[in-house]
Amino acid sequence: MRAHIDRFFANGPGDTDGLRGALAEGRFAAGDIIAIIGKTEGNGGRNDFSRELAVRALADELAEPLGLSRDAVLDRVIFSFSGGTEGVVSPHYLVVWRTGIRPSRPVGPKRLAVAAGRTRPFMVPEVGRRPMIEETARVVRQLMAAARVAPADVHMVQIKGAILPGGEHDGRNNMVYSRAASALGVGVALGEFDTGDLSDETVARDFSLFSRVASTSAKPGLLRSEIILFGNSPYWEGDLLAAHEVMDDMVDLAAVGRLLSSLGLGDRLPLPQAASDRLAAVFAKAEADPRMLLRGRRHTMLTDDDVQDMRYARCVVGAVLAAATGDPACYVSTRAEHHGPLGGGPVVAIARVGEATR
Amino acid sequence: MRAHIDRFFANGPGDTDGLRGALAEGRFAAGDIIAIIGKTEGNGGRNDFSRELAVRALADELAEPLGLSRDAVLDRVIFSFSGGTEGVVSPHYLVVWRTGIRPSRPVGPKRLAVAAGRTRPFMVPEVGRRPMIEETARVVRQLMAAARVAPADVHMVQIKGAILPGGEHDGRNNMVYSRAASALGVGVALGEFDTGDLSDETVARDFSLFSRVASTSAKPGLLRSEIILFGNSPYWEGDLLAAHEVMDDMVDLAAVGRLLSSLGLGDRLPLPQAASDRLAAVFAKAEADPRMLLRGRRHTMLTDDDVQDMRYARCVVGAVLAAATGDPACYVSTRAEHHGPLGGGPVVAIARVGEATR
Amino acid sequence: MRAHIDRFFANGPGDTDGLRGALAEGRFAAGDIIAIIGKTEGNGGRNDFSRELAVRALADELAEPLGLSRDAVLDRVIFSFSGGTEGVVSPHYLVVWRTGIRPSRPVGPKRLAVAAGRTRPFMVPEVGRRPMIEETARVVRQLMAAARVAPADVHMVQIKGAILPGGEHDGRNNMVYSRAASALGVGVALGEFDTGDLSDETVARDFSLFSRVASTSAKPGLLRSEIILFGNSPYWEGDLLAAHEVMDDMVDLAAVGRLLSSLGLGDRLPLPQAASDRLAAVFAKAEADPRMLLRGRRHTMLTDDDVQDMRYARCVVGAVLAAATGDPACYVSTRAEHHGPLGGGPVVAIARVGEATR
Amino acid sequence: MRAHIDRFFANGPGDTDGLRGALAEGRFAAGDIIAIIGKTEGNGGRNDFSRELAVRALADELAEPLGLSRDAVLDRVIFSFSGGTEGVVSPHYLVVWRTGIRPSRPVGPKRLAVAAGRTRPFMVPEVGRRPMIEETARVVRQLMAAARVAPADVHMVQIKGAILPGGEHDGRNNMVYSRAASALGVGVALGEFDTGDLSDETVARDFSLFSRVASTSAKPGLLRSEIILFGNSPYWEGDLLAAHEVMDDMVDLAAVGRLLSSLGLGDRLPLPQAASDRLAAVFAKAEADPRMLLRGRRHTMLTDDDVQDMRYARCVVGAVLAAATGDPACYVSTRAEHHGPLGGGPVVAIARVGEATR
Repeated sequence: MRAHIDRFFANGPGDTDGLRGALAEGRFAAGDIIAIIGKTEGNGGRNDFSRELAVRALADELAEPLGLSRDAVLDRVIFSFSGGTEGVVSPHYLVVWRTGIRPSRPVGPKRLAVAAGRTRPFMVPEVGRRPMIEETARVVRQLMAAARVAPADVHMVQIKGAILPGGEHDGRNNMVYSRAASALGVGVALGEFDTGDLSDETVARDFSLFSRVASTSAKPGLLRSEIILFGNSPYWEGDLLAAHEVMDDMVDLAAVGRLLSSLGLGDRLPLPQAASDRLAAVFAKAEADPRMLLRGRRHTMLTDDDVQDMRYARCVVGAVLAAATGDPACYVSTRAEHHGPLGGGPVVAIARVGEATR
Repeated sequence: MRAHIDRFFANGPGDTDGLRGALAEGRFAAGDIIAIIGKTEGNGGRNDFSRELAVRALADELAEPLGLSRDAVLDRVIFSFSGGTEGVVSPHYLVVWRTGIRPSRPVGPKRLAVAAGRTRPFMVPEVGRRPMIEETARVVRQLMAAARVAPADVHMVQIKGAILPGGEHDGRNNMVYSRAASALGVGVALGEFDTGDLSDETVARDFSLFSRVASTSAKPGLLRSEIILFGNSPYWEGDLLAAHEVMDDMVDLAAVGRLLSSLGLGDRLPLPQAASDRLAAVFAKAEADPRMLLRGRRHTMLTDDDVQDMRYARCVVGAVLAAATGDPACYVSTRAEHHGPLGGGPVVAIARVGEATR
Repeated sequence: MRAHIDRFFANGPGDTDGLRGALAEGRFAAGDIIAIIGKTEGNGGRNDFSRELAVRALADELAEPLGLSRDAVLDRVIFSFSGGTEGVVSPHYLVVWRTGIRPSRPVGPKRLAVAAGRTRPFMVPEVGRRPMIEETARVVRQLMAAARVAPADVHMVQIKGAILPGGEHDGRNNMVYSRAASALGVGVALGEFDTGDLSDETVARDFSLFSRVASTSAKPGLLRSEIILFGNSPYWEGDLLAAHEVMDDMVDLAAVGRLLSSLGLGDRLPLPQAASDRLAAVFAKAEADPRMLLRGRRHTMLTDDDVQDMRYARCVVGAVLAAATGDPACYVSTRAEHHGPLGGGPVVAIARVGEATR
Repeated sequence: MRAHIDRFFANGPGDTDGLRGALAEGRFAAGDIIAIIGKTEGNGGRNDFSRELAVRALADELAEPLGLSRDAVLDRVIFSFSGGTEGVVSPHYLVVWRTGIRPSRPVGPKRLAVAAGRTRPFMVPEVGRRPMIEETARVVRQLMAAARVAPADVHMVQIKGAILPGGEHDGRNNMVYSRAASALGVGVALGEFDTGDLSDETVARDFSLFSRVASTSAKPGLLRSEIILFGNSPYWEGDLLAAHEVMDDMVDLAAVGRLLSSLGLGDRLPLPQAASDRLAAVFAKAEADPRMLLRGRRHTMLTDDDVQDMRYARCVVGAVLAAATGDPACYVSTRAEHHGPLGGGPVVAIARVGEATR
């Protein structure tokens, strides 16, 4: 079994030339695609329609080869798009696909493993509360088992959390609480914190509890949370390896250095070109520190009424990652409740480290 | 003779507590101040009034100790404020002051030297054309002579260029051409390029000619360009030393590394805290690459109609500098015609490197 | 022959429920649709993808009933979407459709007539120059003849002008010149000004020449300009009647009053509800006065670097129209070179005035 | 006793030429000035420094003629500046001044009366709660008595409400609650609603209780609320008369028509030029309807993450007022808790209606 990641650059949210060309030339089969993850050039907010356009256009490309309607494609493949390519971040999407069969025993050194799934449908009072945390944790555990990834080898759990239609008047059925409960669910599944004190009140309030590998967003109208797990496993072949670190703040270049070093890309920043070329994907979660300070100095990201703080957060972290790696195609998303410490967040890289086969 | 730089953080453009306190406690005398250079939290555009407020408020603080009206203070001290503290950049200002007398011969290893001056008043047809280039070059040479700085030891020439009232209908009497001619004037004074082909047509057109140490802006209503020169000289004492590099693009972390290394701050990024603490000032010029690419990837800074490219440029370079140095108080300004290569720009640091006295 | 306009409100650019429902219940046949014209909630600028999403989604709805591919639908039906529903403007789209056969002679009092067509494909050097003006004029004349509308009875010629791929280096093959030449083409066809002095130099320069009924935009990648003409004709039946006026500036409420009065909706502003209910469509072109004044007072729409002037222009004119008519579903678009006087622009209304049949 | 209003247009927030010229030519004495009320071209948000600049610059102009420090000027004269001149609104300020002595009995038909005062200093737990409501009501009643204005003759009570330093952790010591409590205080003083059920819980929650003449804002750092009352009184002379109406929504042109008609400016919209010229001031409070609908249609002001809803609200109401009156110098401010019905707000005009003297 082997996980693959192909990266495509888009000239706009509706540009699907990359995917279409790869399918036409047989680079991968539509049926092998697990997920498509991408950044589009919207504002990342409520009126960002670039995500919807990209998902619609890419799903349309898969409909014919899969022999499915667009809706059925969306039920089969996980599309995870984040708006906002502020600064140097280049709009792109990653096609995550999988080949081969599940081996009965370890095949060699650990390599990238991926698995995707969905929670059961939620009811309104569950969103942002313990039932969502627990169901999320259950599915994360299930995906680890299915992909044969140990908790310590999980490097990113990307979740698009449910927000139920008709629940507008429940104070928890919204972006903040759905993201927060999803992240706590990851932490529970991986044993990242003591669950003894965990309650509904913890959600979006007690930020001392957090996951170091969650990357969650939320989407109004989604009935079931969509989860994709990236880790390393000796049951998987290939040349890709994942790693993660936690940035303590938005300019924590040392954390990025440790991350890249842990993948064998050397210990000097910026990466030399040859090392940069080995990167298959870089992800990060970012947020402007709500305490209004960074390294003890006042920042103005949260008091600028012309530009949202989320745009600044993505711009800053994207710039730091591009400077460190030499590659402006990173996936930075915002709002990071229970994702690493306040003002910081997880950063994940997947690199080509040399073939491992039976 | 000795140059000093004191840095103050502001809680808003009108916050002058830092300067007032320093004057009150006798840290420096108002009469020793040459320039105040700062970043304020406006949008850096035409409707950025944060600069005007800061300059007015700071000049008011100097009026009484200098026994001058506000206008006379503005004639005596150079105020150079740049709007835009996007991302992690922290609003701050630097008070540049000078003590001691001019020695008749070198006093030891080179240390920071500063000098400030103004061009003669321009006439409308001169702005953005050869007369402005030449007069700018003349004053830069004069400042080098006055401060005893050799051309190779100049590390930043910051200029606020004239734009004349009543010249709205001259296509050159504007921000673009005033900045461009000022930068070319610096290059001429320092012999940075062959002046044989230099003509009015070069200005804001032939970007193969550029200065590596200019940092120019322009201000409508200014009759004379204001120039402040930073360099190193054996005639100056103190513990400060300046250096510069050119970033080839907005995420050229390698250039930042070379810059910091050249000041003896080590060759690892990010700087350790002790090295970071030795920085007195960091300046950079930034611009979104007009070719719409960065490292071969499409960027969206110039096609976003919600947020100006200048805001992104400052955010990106500020984030890269803060990540490298560990200090979010850097001075990044935009629009960089004839400042380093297209899409790149000069970066300057001043650090405390140990006392040099007679 | 009879022209119809159905209006649908959308909950987002991808919301096609209105069109789908109307097709499902047989309110009109897909084959009768000439054009779909709408406002989406993007920024109206280069990175406004709400238009592309709306057009894609609506064309998809027509593909099955028309038995065509999406591309073939786009060749058959004119989709004219404008981004920007600033202020009170409500996102909506108008389905323009036509039934019946062309009568051989007038059938009664004039009623709304519509016709749509395309120019021949342009070559790069033609765009924004005389050939585009003339070809536009030719098609407008052709549409008038086809729809049996006299020049004086034309009330709006909406054009999406061509901008050719590969012509980026021609200074005329862009939005400004394509819009301008299209508008001049309308003026030529309708004899709105003396064409004796018309030359390439007139385009986007001599704004004393303008059309009072043009409404043009331009779209990069479009090879042929798309034109839809609205007028009144005695050859058409139905209950709809069109009228137009020219607003002298963005708050010319008197012009709006004359427009509504000319359609028999009374001479008091605001319209009473019963009169408001008779409106089928309202269109306007708006622009911030480039002389920076409105009624002799300074406006700040062109010096705000946080919000584009186009957003303000649509917001202002949309508010004035909504206030006058009581209906926030108006179609206001911006950039109005050669559309009415500087700072002003055409305003058009179509109202139900009572049945006229043979 | 006579109230006067002089209007000045500014070329920027720091432009005080109008005030300086009027003082120089003796149009009014600095000592007669009660208040200066103005609109500046900032974003009206937290990082709008245009207000601070304007107030500082104008206060500096009064310091010398009043023989006071800037701080003492600010204690004596009420400066009420609102940021945001979106769309057609022209930056301007109104100097409100008063001459003559208080007569012992009515002198003729009612004319404009003005009075200004301040509450006692508040403590943190009072802000946004009943003590603030009651103290505000007390001062409003005091001002009515001082100016001899009956409750039914009060047309605007403009308040800048206190927000105390050091009270950041009290959930009520903020903009929303300070504005809300101030508005309720006006309503209490004027008997606009039954105070039986009024409690802390009413504030910023039960919007069925509102004032029709309040216009409140709030300012962090202000210890005492500043109040200026405009009404009509038979004890005052002059040619100015005030009136108010309530706009039921942001495009309620009918309310504007009734307002202008009540001042004898005719009953046709737009106002003819001669009637427009008689306007001395126009004020309004505006807000985007939080129910997301206007006249039953969806608006997008609250879901646009690029431009704040407050900017749209001011732009819309400013456009409607300018269209109705023909004058783009109106004072529209936002956030209107307990100011008229949800989505609507008070509108006030002061016009020259003919001299009334003893």
